[in-house]
Amino acid sequence: RRIGLPEAIYAPGKAETDLVALIEQSLASGEPTIVTRVERELAERLVDRFDLRPYPALERRAPMVALAGNPVPSSSLERVGLVGILAAGTSDRPVAAEAACVIETLGHRTRFVLDCGVAALARSVRAMEEVADADVVVVVAGFEGALASVVGGSMAQPLIAVPTSTGYGAARGGETALWAMLATCAQGVCVVGVDNGFGAGCAAVRIVGAAGRNA
Amino acid sequence: RRIGLPEAIYAPGKAETDLVALIEQSLASGEPTIVTRVERELAERLVDRFDLRPYPALERRAPMVALAGNPVPSSSLERVGLVGILAAGTSDRPVAAEAACVIETLGHRTRFVLDCGVAALARSVRAMEEVADADVVVVVAGFEGALASVVGGSMAQPLIAVPTSTGYGAARGGETALWAMLATCAQGVCVVGVDNGFGAGCAAVRIVGAAGRNA
Amino acid sequence: RRIGLPEAIYAPGKAETDLVALIEQSLASGEPTIVTRVERELAERLVDRFDLRPYPALERRAPMVALAGNPVPSSSLERVGLVGILAAGTSDRPVAAEAACVIETLGHRTRFVLDCGVAALARSVRAMEEVADADVVVVVAGFEGALASVVGGSMAQPLIAVPTSTGYGAARGGETALWAMLATCAQGVCVVGVDNGFGAGCAAVRIVGAAGRNA
Amino acid sequence: RRIGLPEAIYAPGKAETDLVALIEQSLASGEPTIVTRVERELAERLVDRFDLRPYPALERRAPMVALAGNPVPSSSLERVGLVGILAAGTSDRPVAAEAACVIETLGHRTRFVLDCGVAALARSVRAMEEVADADVVVVVAGFEGALASVVGGSMAQPLIAVPTSTGYGAARGGETALWAMLATCAQGVCVVGVDNGFGAGCAAVRIVGAAGRNA
Amino acid sequence: RRIGLPEAIYAPGKAETDLVALIEQSLASGEPTIVTRVERELAERLVDRFDLRPYPALERRAPMVALAGNPVPSSSLERVGLVGILAAGTSDRPVAAEAACVIETLGHRTRFVLDCGVAALARSVRAMEEVADADVVVVVAGFEGALASVVGGSMAQPLIAVPTSTGYGAARGGETALWAMLATCAQGVCVVGVDNGFGAGCAAVRIVGAAGRNA
Amino acid sequence: RRIGLPEAIYAPGKAETDLVALIEQSLASGEPTIVTRVERELAERLVDRFDLRPYPALERRAPMVALAGNPVPSSSLERVGLVGILAAGTSDRPVAAEAACVIETLGHRTRFVLDCGVAALARSVRAMEEVADADVVVVVAGFEGALASVVGGSMAQPLIAVPTSTGYGAARGGETALWAMLATCAQGVCVVGVDNGFGAGCAAVRIVGAAGRNA
Amino acid sequence: RRIGLPEAIYAPGKAETDLVALIEQSLASGEPTIVTRVERELAERLVDRFDLRPYPALERRAPMVALAGNPVPSSSLERVGLVGILAAGTSDRPVAAEAACVIETLGHRTRFVLDCGVAALARSVRAMEEVADADVVVVVAGFEGALASVVGGSMAQPLIAVPTSTGYGAARGGETALWAMLATCAQGVCVVGVDNGFGAGCAAVRIVGAAGRNA
Amino acid sequence: RRIGLPEAIYAPGKAETDLVALIEQSLASGEPTIVTRVERELAERLVDRFDLRPYPALERRAPMVALAGNPVPSSSLERVGLVGILAAGTSDRPVAAEAACVIETLGHRTRFVLDCGVAALARSVRAMEEVADADVVVVVAGFEGALASVVGGSMAQPLIAVPTSTGYGAARGGETALWAMLATCAQGVCVVGVDNGFGAGCAAVRIVGAAGRNA
Ligand SMILES: Nc1ncnc2c1ncn2[C@@H]1O[C@H](COP(=O)(O)O)[C@@H](O)[C@H]1O
Ligand SMILES: Nc1ncnc2c1ncn2[C@@H]1O[C@H](COP(=O)(O)O)[C@@H](O)[C@H]1O
Ligand SMILES: Nc1ncnc2c1ncn2[C@@H]1O[C@H](COP(=O)(O)O)[C@@H](O)[C@H]1O
Ligand SMILES: Nc1ncnc2c1ncn2[C@@H]1O[C@H](COP(=O)(O)O)[C@@H](O)[C@H]1O
Ligand SMILES: [Mg+2]
Ligand SMILES: [Mg+2]
Ligand SMILES: [Mg+2]
Ligand SMILES: [Mg+2]
Ligand SMILES: [Mg+2]
Ligand SMILES: [Mg+2]
Ligand SMILES: [Mg+2]
Ligand SMILES: [Mg+2]
Repeated sequence: RRIGLPEAIYAPGKAETDLVALIEQSLASGEPTIVTRVERELAERLVDRFDLRPYPALERRAPMVALAGNPVPSSSLERVGLVGILAAGTSDRPVAAEAACVIETLGHRTRFVLDCGVAALARSVRAMEEVADADVVVVVAGFEGALASVVGGSMAQPLIAVPTSTGYGAARGGETALWAMLATCAQGVCVVGVDNGFGAGCAAVRIVGAAGRNA
Repeated sequence: RRIGLPEAIYAPGKAETDLVALIEQSLASGEPTIVTRVERELAERLVDRFDLRPYPALERRAPMVALAGNPVPSSSLERVGLVGILAAGTSDRPVAAEAACVIETLGHRTRFVLDCGVAALARSVRAMEEVADADVVVVVAGFEGALASVVGGSMAQPLIAVPTSTGYGAARGGETALWAMLATCAQGVCVVGVDNGFGAGCAAVRIVGAAGRNA
Repeated sequence: RRIGLPEAIYAPGKAETDLVALIEQSLASGEPTIVTRVERELAERLVDRFDLRPYPALERRAPMVALAGNPVPSSSLERVGLVGILAAGTSDRPVAAEAACVIETLGHRTRFVLDCGVAALARSVRAMEEVADADVVVVVAGFEGALASVVGGSMAQPLIAVPTSTGYGAARGGETALWAMLATCAQGVCVVGVDNGFGAGCAAVRIVGAAGRNA
Repeated sequence: RRIGLPEAIYAPGKAETDLVALIEQSLASGEPTIVTRVERELAERLVDRFDLRPYPALERRAPMVALAGNPVPSSSLERVGLVGILAAGTSDRPVAAEAACVIETLGHRTRFVLDCGVAALARSVRAMEEVADADVVVVVAGFEGALASVVGGSMAQPLIAVPTSTGYGAARGGETALWAMLATCAQGVCVVGVDNGFGAGCAAVRIVGAAGRNA
Repeated sequence: RRIGLPEAIYAPGKAETDLVALIEQSLASGEPTIVTRVERELAERLVDRFDLRPYPALERRAPMVALAGNPVPSSSLERVGLVGILAAGTSDRPVAAEAACVIETLGHRTRFVLDCGVAALARSVRAMEEVADADVVVVVAGFEGALASVVGGSMAQPLIAVPTSTGYGAARGGETALWAMLATCAQGVCVVGVDNGFGAGCAAVRIVGAAGRNA
Repeated sequence: RRIGLPEAIYAPGKAETDLVALIEQSLASGEPTIVTRVERELAERLVDRFDLRPYPALERRAPMVALAGNPVPSSSLERVGLVGILAAGTSDRPVAAEAACVIETLGHRTRFVLDCGVAALARSVRAMEEVADADVVVVVAGFEGALASVVGGSMAQPLIAVPTSTGYGAARGGETALWAMLATCAQGVCVVGVDNGFGAGCAAVRIVGAAGRNA
Repeated sequence: RRIGLPEAIYAPGKAETDLVALIEQSLASGEPTIVTRVERELAERLVDRFDLRPYPALERRAPMVALAGNPVPSSSLERVGLVGILAAGTSDRPVAAEAACVIETLGHRTRFVLDCGVAALARSVRAMEEVADADVVVVVAGFEGALASVVGGSMAQPLIAVPTSTGYGAARGGETALWAMLATCAQGVCVVGVDNGFGAGCAAVRIVGAAGRNA
Repeated sequence: RRIGLPEAIYAPGKAETDLVALIEQSLASGEPTIVTRVERELAERLVDRFDLRPYPALERRAPMVALAGNPVPSSSLERVGLVGILAAGTSDRPVAAEAACVIETLGHRTRFVLDCGVAALARSVRAMEEVADADVVVVVAGFEGALASVVGGSMAQPLIAVPTSTGYGAARGGETALWAMLATCAQGVCVVGVDNGFGAGCAAVRIVGAAGRNA
């Protein structure tokens, strides 16, 4: 944790035996341990074997899960931040959960609102009210990612937009949402790569951590 | 007007003498005459010379103007439609005006709301109220074009989205808005090419004209 | 049905048990129920289990099927519209059928012509005659999508073009047809995303529904 | 003329004095001399100075002109071919004329039909009748280039499609037409680069020349 | 065979029973029958069942095979053409064979040279000598497709270039070769879509057929 | 300042008289006034006429300048933040200065290090030491934008990366740096659009402002 | 070995029996034999069967392996070069090993440093020290490829950069690193295609071989 | 010259007074001074004013010129290398000359062959003979860049390929040649950015310099 941020173990392409070895080694180090993009069935086996927390919870049946161990206790932080996480659609849940995984594992709190995309504008408005007291807002959306523009125009907090690969027709695996979020007419929105919930979580922790240092 | 839609004279790349000749010939034919993308100073000369109506009005100082002659009298139509035109920013005015030019020249009515982009969501909501009784809605927006998603999720009318080349940073000359509008999470939004106010106007006339035929 | 359009259940990536639960819940709500992009064998099981109508009919052996339940009775509408659907090739059938599914489930009528692409121009001409009395025309085509240009130049109705991912060599999964349809030299053609039969159906319903409201 | 095809002098980016020197040298060699993409005013000066033939003729006011000297006399050929050239719109004339320039300068004949794009299908059909006896057909079109598909599906001759940079909205400087022509559903259409009338002319000469060799 | 060219049955995505039915129907019609992109094992079964000729021959072990039935007898043609087919690498064989399949099935002759890419320039030169008497040359190449430039600069015949999806690193599934062939510095090369051996074969037949008509 | 962030007046494409009117109106409102991307000579005239501060200072001879009026006094803020701004090359100065303009005009402090790109790694390291106490770091870089990766791996603060259009050969107007910054192997870096110094400044203010609110 | 470089056998898409035959034939020729991109399990079988050396060693569990036989003895060279190979992350090992395979098989030496990406700058610096005496440096990196810039700015040797397909979010299968390396602000870095360890190895051998020739 | 390579002064976008100041300062430092991409008329003025050597020589009338001062005397080097520079067409001269400028200014020799593109293969072959004794070969080519493949397959030296923005139709400002060179079927070719003669020159110097160090 050179700069206070964990290195995650990226599961895709790794054999199960290799993953198990890496997780054992990381848990043994005592450092926060994060494993990302674990397929559900493998996640179930790893949760059974180790003392890891799944994001989202396994009963959500997400196809991809992030796992965390050795969480930083909130009590060890100077200041515990609150990060609001808004996910436009239910398919965006795994990416949003990956961000939550990082933030909570590093000792901060999250508040999560699902299915608040702008196609049902009233739900978007309600979601913004629910996270009105957050220190940072993370917006997770696929298709054209318009939720980032609406939130960015309405809330004053630091806002991190995460484009997802959700969508079809012209969503191009998240590239459409990525460009839309970068080009948003709302001021001061910043963006991470497609499906990069891990990066968004780290960016949020940089911000709430900075606030802690300056408190 | 093979299928009831005018051929427009596209001004860019044509010499002034050629344009003048084409306009004279078109006006003489008695058919609706539309000239698109005329630079402001040239537009002023052409308006002085011919009985043409500028869109937007010349005092708006738009850099590009559409010009119309030989309008179809509304009284000749079975049914006069109303088209709501929403432009996200003031820079989108020339494209929005080009759509209005086609629609009004073919005898229908337009109602125009400017500067109602989602970065100021309350203005977007007010704009939708102003065009609540329209038969068709045309949304004109650059940057990430999020206004189309918000209107598409809130209004039941036929909705034609026009991406514009307005924007910078990641707007890529309108391509970002184009993809975003095609990928919108709102249902049944359809899209024309970048800055193609002429095409949007023709599509709107196809719709209100069809309503007329079926009345 | 906030704005009178159904939310569809998008099948890809959903487990069968999840799909079954979502369909049960939707049918129970009494609202029109639409499931899109269901693989044929799964579609057969779902049709066996629920009272759903497959598009295209199962004997067509399409690899992907849309399913509908709780259709809106035509008798409940002020005016029942007719939508002509032209599919350039037989491989475009599933996308065309998805559009038909939405339109019929919301109580309107469709007339379908298959295999009328411009490589056999006489068939294209005959197809246009067959849908001459439609309120709206939906053109579904892959490869270079030229059928949209030919129909757009010859028919005055509202025209919605749907590019499909059909084709090879330079079809780029539908992107070639998408750009070609957006750039068509025919006037007032509007476009939805690749393979987005659902969006085209919704756009058609917006139009025929509007005609109904104004009748 | 290593392989019987001329090297052309490409005018853009060359100073007038350099061009004059290159033309003098080429004319002196006795070989067919072709200069491409000459701006109109420069073309007028060069035609005044040298015995060159402009394509299109200068009274056509094309912004770009091709110039030819030292034509191969038709009488020197074993067989004089006829190439039909169809240009979708008037803006495509300079590219079509560049093809004609090469073909005629090498001793073959051309027959030219302008403004026969598919937005007015009857004109496309008439144009095909006019070139029914050609040995080769060259189709020149911008926007979505649909004319190539219609001709390719209806005529049995060798067909060379030339995408042009004509168009706006989604024409992307000719790239849309290029991809559409490559993806055409018509069989055996082949394609050259954007605005590459010179290449199309050379390809046509390869074909009619081959016919000559085999006669 | 509206214009003398066959419609091919494109195998990918079609169930074996559907393919069998389509082939039976086509063979019964007496028209030339061509099936493209058949996986090797399926091809073996179809060859066992029907009187079809595989391209390439099955002992070549190509992963994809084209199949032909009801060939046009050469004796029925006014003039039998010869098409030289040069394939840069052994991986390009299936695409080259697809072109040969069309040409031979329509009664013309082919001469085939494999593995003559420019990385071994002497082989390229020898290959050109082997097809020096061909009426048309088809060049099939992946990677950067440089063979088309070398042949185009050295041979005077009509030349059809077919980019293939062979290659890695920067070959981008054939797009690199496609653009390179379109931009070739050799004069009058024309191009079909990626892996489109069928299209190249049809284009070659248009040319040799035209020569026949004019003989 | 709906959400505490100014709307900027974007100068490109606006006539000088229009700009003057917009600036007068904005200054009269008492709100912070920011004008972006003003060409140097025009900037000099506007600075002469109004009480505006240029970024960068006019003696820097930047081709583009941002102008600010009505700054928020630091004394009015709960907490004044410090933003480190690192510019990889001297050509990146105007974009970096635009970020500084926003941040200082809203009452916060900046510390600026120029010409610290990774091609001279020792300078990059020294630059990081100079801004070690900043609350937020903004990295501005063109070419391949590698400075963002080096800073992101070495500093724990919130980090906003701004790709610039500086560079040639393969820089593609900033797109290369944009993608590189989004794909950085450093954790929790977030990104705004190309040359979007204004957006980066707003994002930095969201962060230091949030720290203020929570103090 | 026309020019002293081996032709490699590219394994993907080849049946095991075909591969075995090709390897037997190549080993029998006595020329250096290289097989690239062999899946691990197949590699194990081939190593058991033939006298081939795997890169990386099989206990590294790389998913892809290069295999070499008939190495050129170093004693046969005029001068044995040393190539430093730096791999940014552990996932880049197979590509780096492929380069090592070529270099060592042709008789030169390599020195390998793994996991020295710029996110941990101290490791990058240490890695450069470890290869300070190399004749050539090969840098292998995915994501944004920033290691090439840092090494290129700090070391004077010939530097060959290999982008890899490692990374997610915005890495686009290696295209991001490719563009970044081509646009690097460091002077005189040159680049091969994505994952093209073979090409990088050959380029390194051209350089150390040239040094040998000139010694 | 941290690593023995000069920093160049990149002229585009710099005012003449700024350039003059930068050149004076660089000449005064005694280090090799290189100014790149100077427009011809400005170059003439700077050559008049300072003791700078133009590349290409001014009588070549290149639109862009590189200028050099303070050359490293060859006598100061351990070993003077020879770099062969092959330019496919005359339009590629300025880029080739920029490479020569760097190489000669750092004390090495160049041998230059112009107009040896593969469309006239005999000239390509002759050119390779002329540089057969070079230590390094630089190939400069636009359009599809096929010269790099031919040279790469025939010569054993280190080969640096420079794509240029020369070409039209499908050359896309050099991107086509760039991809083609990266995907070349020849082994061990490496590539720099479009028109990056400076980078190619630096890469060549790294190689001949390394040979010197090892001599
Ligand atoms: N909510 C929005 N959605 C899309 N584009 C917008 C929105 N708000 C502003 N824009 C764009 O921002 C540009 C600049 O605004 P203006 O200065 O008012 O012209 C406009 O041209 C719009 O295209
Ligand atoms: N005229 C046409 N315009 C566009 N696409 C066409 C046309 N004709 C055929 N196609 C496409 O060719 C594909 C193959 O045809 P089929 O074998 O009938 O499915 C179809 O899916 C169509 O999308
Ligand atoms: N059917 C068509 N197919 C392709 N392009 C067309 C077609 N009709 C018109 N165009 C294009 O429309 C442009 C404008 O037409 P014009 O004003 O006649 O030059 C022409 O340059 C053509 O490229
Ligand atoms: N280490 C670096 N990382 C990214 N870009 C750089 C780096 N070093 C220099 N540059 C770019 O090189 C451009 C030219 O440098 P300069 O001439 O100092 O303006 C700058 O604008 C930077 O964007
Ligand atoms: Mg939802
Ligand atoms: Mg505004
Ligand atoms: Mg069909
Ligand atoms: Mg016309
Ligand atoms: Mg081979
Ligand atoms: Mg600098
Ligand atoms: Mg690592
Ligand atoms: Mg030349």
